[in-house]
Amino acid sequence: MPAGDSLPRHVCPQCGTIHYQNPKLVVGCIAEWHDRILLCRRSIEPRYGLWTLPAGFMENGESTAQAAIRETLEEACARVEIEQLFSLVNVPHINQVHLFYRARLLDIGFAAGLETLETQLFAEDCVPWQSLAFQTVALCLQAYFADRRRGRFGLHEDCIERRGKQA
Amino acid sequence: MPAGDSLPRHVCPQCGTIHYQNPKLVVGCIAEWHDRILLCRRSIEPRYGLWTLPAGFMENGESTAQAAIRETLEEACARVEIEQLFSLVNVPHINQVHLFYRARLLDIGFAAGLETLETQLFAEDCVPWQSLAFQTVALCLQAYFADRRRGRFGLHEDCIERRGKQA
Repeated sequence: MPAGDSLPRHVCPQCGTIHYQNPKLVVGCIAEWHDRILLCRRSIEPRYGLWTLPAGFMENGESTAQAAIRETLEEACARVEIEQLFSLVNVPHINQVHLFYRARLLDIGFAAGLETLETQLFAEDCVPWQSLAFQTVALCLQAYFADRRRGRFGLHEDCIERRGKQA
Repeated sequence: MPAGDSLPRHVCPQCGTIHYQNPKLVVGCIAEWHDRILLCRRSIEPRYGLWTLPAGFMENGESTAQAAIRETLEEACARVEIEQLFSLVNVPHINQVHLFYRARLLDIGFAAGLETLETQLFAEDCVPWQSLAFQTVALCLQAYFADRRRGRFGLHEDCIERRGKQA
């Protein structure tokens, strides 16, 4: 435990550098095209073949909104305009915080990116609820469609606790 | 650049471990006591002697709300109940994302923590605007008092760009 700190840290025994381990941000989009939203079927593990919102790890030097736009472009080749932060989901047992923005698709020229088998627009009653890759995505989409039905979008905050299943 | 990646990474030449560098979350509270809010005067660098909201780096294994409660306890010995996420401020040039929650002080038994010279409750017209430690805190407090005057709190998202001054 470094002097003045309250937790044990990874410290290099040679040079004394402290390697802090902090939660990572995963950022993505609910990309809307009229009454449909864009999902991606994963071509990588974990959860190969299951459906997810375009999202991924935020990188240094970008903002959360820029990360959401970049991930949507990388995974779904889709260009979006950010509307509003919609969902913050904590997943403390894997040291992640997930943020999802509502965003507007600028056109329907989307396609599968490198980590994606296929991309598709889904109306609410066609969402593949039984084949979603992550619990964070399911929570976010449930809140999204509930808000849309009542005609007003809020900010939704959740925390997923460990329970055998990974988030 | 590791296979399948799109950015150069720090890779250990001996064992091949990839050390990803990602933005860090700084999380804190606007702790309310009736019409006043709690500020802390810093006893550490950077910005020794200037005023700030209780906030600090989120740790692994906790949620954002838990981090806000913990930091408020550590820096101001203050016990709070979280109300709502109020502000998300990106500071991409230092690879940070700051989150501030509105919170209710449970009692006024606050006191200076280890990184604090003194703690004090401030009404809006007494806030030391010229002696605030960070631009993220100033932005957050401006939005907070503006929302309070209009009687409704929203979520505020900002991005601070580099301009000579550190955020």
